[in-house]
Amino acid sequence: MSENKIVVLAYSGGLDTSCILVWLKQRGFEVVTYMANVGQDEDFEAAEKKAMMLGAKKFVCLDVRREFVEEFIWPGVQANAVYEDRYLMGTSFARPCIARGMVKVCKEEGAGYIAHGATGKGNDQIRFELSCYALYPQVKVIAPWRMPEFYEKFRGRQDLFEFAKENNIPLPVTPKSPWSMDANLMHISFESGILEDPKAEAPKDLYLMTTDPKDAPEQPLRLEIDFKHGVPVKVKNLEDGTVVTSALELYLYLNKVGGSHGIGRIDIVENRFIGMKSRGIYETPGGTILFQAHMDIEVFTMDRELRKIKQSLSSKFSDMVYRGFWDSPECEFVRHCIDKSQECVEGTVTLALYKGGIYILGRESPLSLYNEELVSMDVQGNYDPIDAGGFIKVNALRLQEYHRLRKKMGAEQNGKLGTGDQ
Amino acid sequence: MSENKIVVLAYSGGLDTSCILVWLKQRGFEVVTYMANVGQDEDFEAAEKKAMMLGAKKFVCLDVRREFVEEFIWPGVQANAVYEDRYLMGTSFARPCIARGMVKVCKEEGAGYIAHGATGKGNDQIRFELSCYALYPQVKVIAPWRMPEFYEKFRGRQDLFEFAKENNIPLPVTPKSPWSMDANLMHISFESGILEDPKAEAPKDLYLMTTDPKDAPEQPLRLEIDFKHGVPVKVKNLEDGTVVTSALELYLYLNKVGGSHGIGRIDIVENRFIGMKSRGIYETPGGTILFQAHMDIEVFTMDRELRKIKQSLSSKFSDMVYRGFWDSPECEFVRHCIDKSQECVEGTVTLALYKGGIYILGRESPLSLYNEELVSMDVQGNYDPIDAGGFIKVNALRLQEYHRLRKKMGAEQNGKLGTGDQ
Amino acid sequence: MSENKIVVLAYSGGLDTSCILVWLKQRGFEVVTYMANVGQDEDFEAAEKKAMMLGAKKFVCLDVRREFVEEFIWPGVQANAVYEDRYLMGTSFARPCIARGMVKVCKEEGAGYIAHGATGKGNDQIRFELSCYALYPQVKVIAPWRMPEFYEKFRGRQDLFEFAKENNIPLPVTPKSPWSMDANLMHISFESGILEDPKAEAPKDLYLMTTDPKDAPEQPLRLEIDFKHGVPVKVKNLEDGTVVTSALELYLYLNKVGGSHGIGRIDIVENRFIGMKSRGIYETPGGTILFQAHMDIEVFTMDRELRKIKQSLSSKFSDMVYRGFWDSPECEFVRHCIDKSQECVEGTVTLALYKGGIYILGRESPLSLYNEELVSMDVQGNYDPIDAGGFIKVNALRLQEYHRLRKKMGAEQNGKLGTGDQ
Amino acid sequence: MSENKIVVLAYSGGLDTSCILVWLKQRGFEVVTYMANVGQDEDFEAAEKKAMMLGAKKFVCLDVRREFVEEFIWPGVQANAVYEDRYLMGTSFARPCIARGMVKVCKEEGAGYIAHGATGKGNDQIRFELSCYALYPQVKVIAPWRMPEFYEKFRGRQDLFEFAKENNIPLPVTPKSPWSMDANLMHISFESGILEDPKAEAPKDLYLMTTDPKDAPEQPLRLEIDFKHGVPVKVKNLEDGTVVTSALELYLYLNKVGGSHGIGRIDIVENRFIGMKSRGIYETPGGTILFQAHMDIEVFTMDRELRKIKQSLSSKFSDMVYRGFWDSPECEFVRHCIDKSQECVEGTVTLALYKGGIYILGRESPLSLYNEELVSMDVQGNYDPIDAGGFIKVNALRLQEYHRLRKKMGAEQNGKLGTGDQ
Repeated sequence: MSENKIVVLAYSGGLDTSCILVWLKQRGFEVVTYMANVGQDEDFEAAEKKAMMLGAKKFVCLDVRREFVEEFIWPGVQANAVYEDRYLMGTSFARPCIARGMVKVCKEEGAGYIAHGATGKGNDQIRFELSCYALYPQVKVIAPWRMPEFYEKFRGRQDLFEFAKENNIPLPVTPKSPWSMDANLMHISFESGILEDPKAEAPKDLYLMTTDPKDAPEQPLRLEIDFKHGVPVKVKNLEDGTVVTSALELYLYLNKVGGSHGIGRIDIVENRFIGMKSRGIYETPGGTILFQAHMDIEVFTMDRELRKIKQSLSSKFSDMVYRGFWDSPECEFVRHCIDKSQECVEGTVTLALYKGGIYILGRESPLSLYNEELVSMDVQGNYDPIDAGGFIKVNALRLQEYHRLRKKMGAEQNGKLGTGDQ
Repeated sequence: MSENKIVVLAYSGGLDTSCILVWLKQRGFEVVTYMANVGQDEDFEAAEKKAMMLGAKKFVCLDVRREFVEEFIWPGVQANAVYEDRYLMGTSFARPCIARGMVKVCKEEGAGYIAHGATGKGNDQIRFELSCYALYPQVKVIAPWRMPEFYEKFRGRQDLFEFAKENNIPLPVTPKSPWSMDANLMHISFESGILEDPKAEAPKDLYLMTTDPKDAPEQPLRLEIDFKHGVPVKVKNLEDGTVVTSALELYLYLNKVGGSHGIGRIDIVENRFIGMKSRGIYETPGGTILFQAHMDIEVFTMDRELRKIKQSLSSKFSDMVYRGFWDSPECEFVRHCIDKSQECVEGTVTLALYKGGIYILGRESPLSLYNEELVSMDVQGNYDPIDAGGFIKVNALRLQEYHRLRKKMGAEQNGKLGTGDQ
Repeated sequence: MSENKIVVLAYSGGLDTSCILVWLKQRGFEVVTYMANVGQDEDFEAAEKKAMMLGAKKFVCLDVRREFVEEFIWPGVQANAVYEDRYLMGTSFARPCIARGMVKVCKEEGAGYIAHGATGKGNDQIRFELSCYALYPQVKVIAPWRMPEFYEKFRGRQDLFEFAKENNIPLPVTPKSPWSMDANLMHISFESGILEDPKAEAPKDLYLMTTDPKDAPEQPLRLEIDFKHGVPVKVKNLEDGTVVTSALELYLYLNKVGGSHGIGRIDIVENRFIGMKSRGIYETPGGTILFQAHMDIEVFTMDRELRKIKQSLSSKFSDMVYRGFWDSPECEFVRHCIDKSQECVEGTVTLALYKGGIYILGRESPLSLYNEELVSMDVQGNYDPIDAGGFIKVNALRLQEYHRLRKKMGAEQNGKLGTGDQ
Repeated sequence: MSENKIVVLAYSGGLDTSCILVWLKQRGFEVVTYMANVGQDEDFEAAEKKAMMLGAKKFVCLDVRREFVEEFIWPGVQANAVYEDRYLMGTSFARPCIARGMVKVCKEEGAGYIAHGATGKGNDQIRFELSCYALYPQVKVIAPWRMPEFYEKFRGRQDLFEFAKENNIPLPVTPKSPWSMDANLMHISFESGILEDPKAEAPKDLYLMTTDPKDAPEQPLRLEIDFKHGVPVKVKNLEDGTVVTSALELYLYLNKVGGSHGIGRIDIVENRFIGMKSRGIYETPGGTILFQAHMDIEVFTMDRELRKIKQSLSSKFSDMVYRGFWDSPECEFVRHCIDKSQECVEGTVTLALYKGGIYILGRESPLSLYNEELVSMDVQGNYDPIDAGGFIKVNALRLQEYHRLRKKMGAEQNGKLGTGDQ
């Protein structure tokens, strides 16, 4: 089947992928342009028009926003997924979702090839391609930015402009920002260009999803978030009484209120899968709120030791997601296990948003293992304090033995057997 | 030696330990009262006077603040130590430091016993006693709140008051707050009493080390923090040029500026070692700043895979610290390893404090593995993008095999061998 | 309910628990004696007669052998459970199975107490009691060997003899062996007595389940073992054609042939939960064969990365089992996850038993991820060797950067910038 | 420097690398042939003669056997390194040792290239190249078996024969065995050819280092092995009194006696780094003995919790070694930590070798944490059995809470609040 020359191109509507579209056609490919609506701010109709004008065989746009939230972000919330302790992976979660749609289009269109405009130094090429290879093992990948015949031809932006002019590709009307950007409903990421200097502060006008904390409202916003099975099922704004419940709407609402209160900005250096360190700026308003709220309700309801195991799985899960292994056997397994762990993660968290900060105020749950009577300093509860003495002494046994031996060794080494100063 | 009846009592100057002092004397013990200055706000002289007045054999106060910072908090900073993802363990780090001094006093005074006023449901009894048993294996522990003869006598605060009156123990002049509290230079913790209801919001006037973010300055404060070997060696206030360099002063300075900007408040439920969930409120201004700053410089300078291993050690370290195993063989080992990992963690982090939030603005280091040229989208650097294709394909191999097998199985199960729709 | 004085005693029929039976009666308890048949070599009728003669209220014996194999040993086989790299935990798996029966008897008999004859230094007291407390939270435990009033009365074997004589308890007819022993169908363990000297070789006549390898048959025995879902479903003796399929029979058959070939003896020092090191000798013939065979088929059929995660869960599982946490939330969770991982662990392993050794000879599976064509040195398969070059270079990137930096640092430290000897 | 055309070729003296030598010369390279003596059975002089005859610029042979044992195998022994639970990694440990010598030769000869004859599907190409890239970041690698211009020319053995005849390369005098093989003093590995069928039993005449257990001596051989800092320092044959002490001699002696007793054969399927499963047969006589003996003395002398951490590091170390990351920052770190953990791993293990099996008989150590008095069932030691009760009850607390909640939930779900059947 891959003998035909139909290729599905991940199309953005921008200059790069428009040039790639034409370049592929020049190489004899029929090009199906594919866009996934993952919540980015985009004029899909304009993109379609442009693609067809440039000779695309077809333009397919899939609205995968609900799928993105429910099947990709929700598992991430359950996992408390975070890469290298800080990055909530808005791009990483979107890639396998986009790739899944792409493979679907490939099969519908009988395409044996996929193409994309990701660079050869980044993570996205990996995430895209691993998912495509997994879901469609025979696929052939065309990644022009990794092909000398392409990148040697297009050494700079100027070369793209000239190719565009020669081939009637419309030039961008707005100047390119001095950094690159990736947006979806979970986050916007910024990197490259002037951000490559890790000590240079990011410009104030870079941010798009979040208000500068300095300009955020002077009054905290109080929210109540209800969880079931580790997933948010209801958000209530305690100031104005707004309630949202369905997954996509809920997520977008948290983005809105989180963004307006300046929540979820980070400036980090991270380690790409490819082995290099890179600097990124991220805005993840809704995701940051859910990360904190879910953690709170999880610790409240889940057994301590179970959670320790779940967290070790989560940390592996985060690595897999970052590296593009969503469609791997190990990631399927870990998602199953983490989902299982969430059976009792249920309840309500109250929190406040204020000038970039999230403040947990309280929590309650019908399934909590928290036992107010047991922990109380005023009531004895079903607990016999005398037991703690035995508990401590048995825990101390190993330590006493160890220090006795060390002492003996120290004494012997100094030729002072049995100095017995204790 | 433990045949004598000398006991070293961890004395706070408060009502509980004053009653215990007298109670021990009534049981025939000679009582050496011991206080450790770990930076809490305390009138040590008044405490001494009170202890001697109540018949203490001796009063010993050790100023261990520098030791606390350099030998306990610094390893915690190197480790990015955090319990259950949120708690920076201000109390946990202080306990083994206090216990070390206590054992020292025991040996100097020839005491065979220690006593303390910690409750039988908490972590502190464990932390105290494990360190004492480790450093002084023959020691005998008297924990009155675990002894029926004591806690059955003192069933409520009223019983303590009466005992105090009978024995000329001065009564507290200020009313007890409706929660309990533990303070040192690293943090103040609040728990019990009205805080035992996990959904009740903490009262605004509870906090002591931090300003309410709402009342914090309208202008962000910018700081530069220099690290060497994973430990802060200099803090510079970029607004007023203040510079502090020595460990204790630096830590106290971060507390001051962090506190005034509302940094480091959390409200959590945590899992005690004893097996119950409890709710705690913590203020850790300086520690929270260092946690963020250290993480940033560490990711910037440390190899990715090394850091992954270091983090898995840190997570074990945090558990040990929380549970009181500071003086265990495993904790000694892990401290050694983490310290080793910090050899190249060196450089400067710039950050801003604003209304409860910490914002990393940039970082630089002479030892960073960050390579601006390598990561640049504009320069090829010493990197051949074509290699990424091979990298991805080899990583995909396992995934392709897995999905091929699954497909085959699925097909066979449906009796549709080789339907080959792909 | 626990106000009544009915106690269920884990009864062995031996001297210790017979004395405990009488001692409990003397304290006003009605004693229900309980035995679990976990495959030990025991005269249950004689035990019943003895118990009733000594005044037991009732004697209950549950045959839990099939349950033991299917619900306890099988999860262990799936997990490749092993404690401290060597011990297959025959006793650890039996305890929660026995305890489950005990709780059942408690509920049927309306008993509020359980009692057992385990010592205060061992693991078994913990395993028993944790399972009982979990499954029957209100239960009260009577462990005479931890009660001063009991162990101070019975300081040596002679004291037991005298108590027995006074109370018409029949004395053992055979002399006690100079070690203690625990037997069930999974293994026999030996410890204490002359075995407490860790350098003294175990006597040859100690072993009961296994022939001395020196006396084992001169001809290897070849077996084929079929697995499904990670569990053995068929064993075929390739020498004589014997086939066994049901769980209990299969396990006993492996014990028989394994035992006759001297399989499964180990002499180890292990770390008890209580914190001390102890020396144990174990015979686990069937379990050792299954451990090796399951590992072989698992690696053959399971994805590499999935298995790495599964093994990290298994290592936690083994610790839980050893420490008696079978009936904990974390152990339930981990059992679920491990079971899930075994979905494709299916196929046949051929092996030989010979003079104490197990030799894997080959394996096959309908679900293996092994791809003979892909791995072949003679065929290219669906693999492009050129990709490996890119794979290696991308993996090397991080290493090159690290060594470049180190070199630079070394050079700079020596004031020899750019000596460039490479 | 890499502008010159000097290449260091890892030369084996066999047909493949002889053809590569000539092929490289035909491409204008000056070829320095390099052999490392890692203990393989090889006629180094004949190889030298052949290389020079074929036009090598130079022949360099480094005897790295002692270095191999002391700097590569010993860290492996300390770690109890094992890949996927079974493979002791004889080849994996040798590769970075060989590569280190190769880089040394490169620098001495001013060579900018290395070449080797490893295939494109195996692990060895990775191990070689990662170490070379790490130690010599600018090096260029020529791997003919990954280059289409080479492997398309030499599609089968016949093509090599013809090229050899054309170029006066001597043809092998003995027929090629129907599998491939890699030998060094640590092990011999066999794979490919007829072994690629995972269910086909390996032929009896394949093995070279070990006697068939069936033909091994009828009498067990007893050995005493002394360890210091986790490394063997003395072996004593208890049958004939032979004593060996220096590292290399000791290792070779264990190979000899282990081999003659049939120790160390395994037949496994393993997961290559490249992502495919492959079948390998290994003989590792000395390594297998040391693995068992070291584990025994380590558990005997090391604290339980420390060892658990050390084992988790070891499992990471084993993966790194297998995958060729010896010269990575993470592997350096882990080696340092593991070495640190071995400070007290000291003592003597007595064991017997018999017909393929290793039987630990006893152990002693001046530094053991084993305390015979403490563990004794006959003596109370410094241990109060009553403490165990408190220890268990506190450990049970969490389990009781969990089961209480679950019961409540179950009851509520069934609308039967407080059915109270317990």
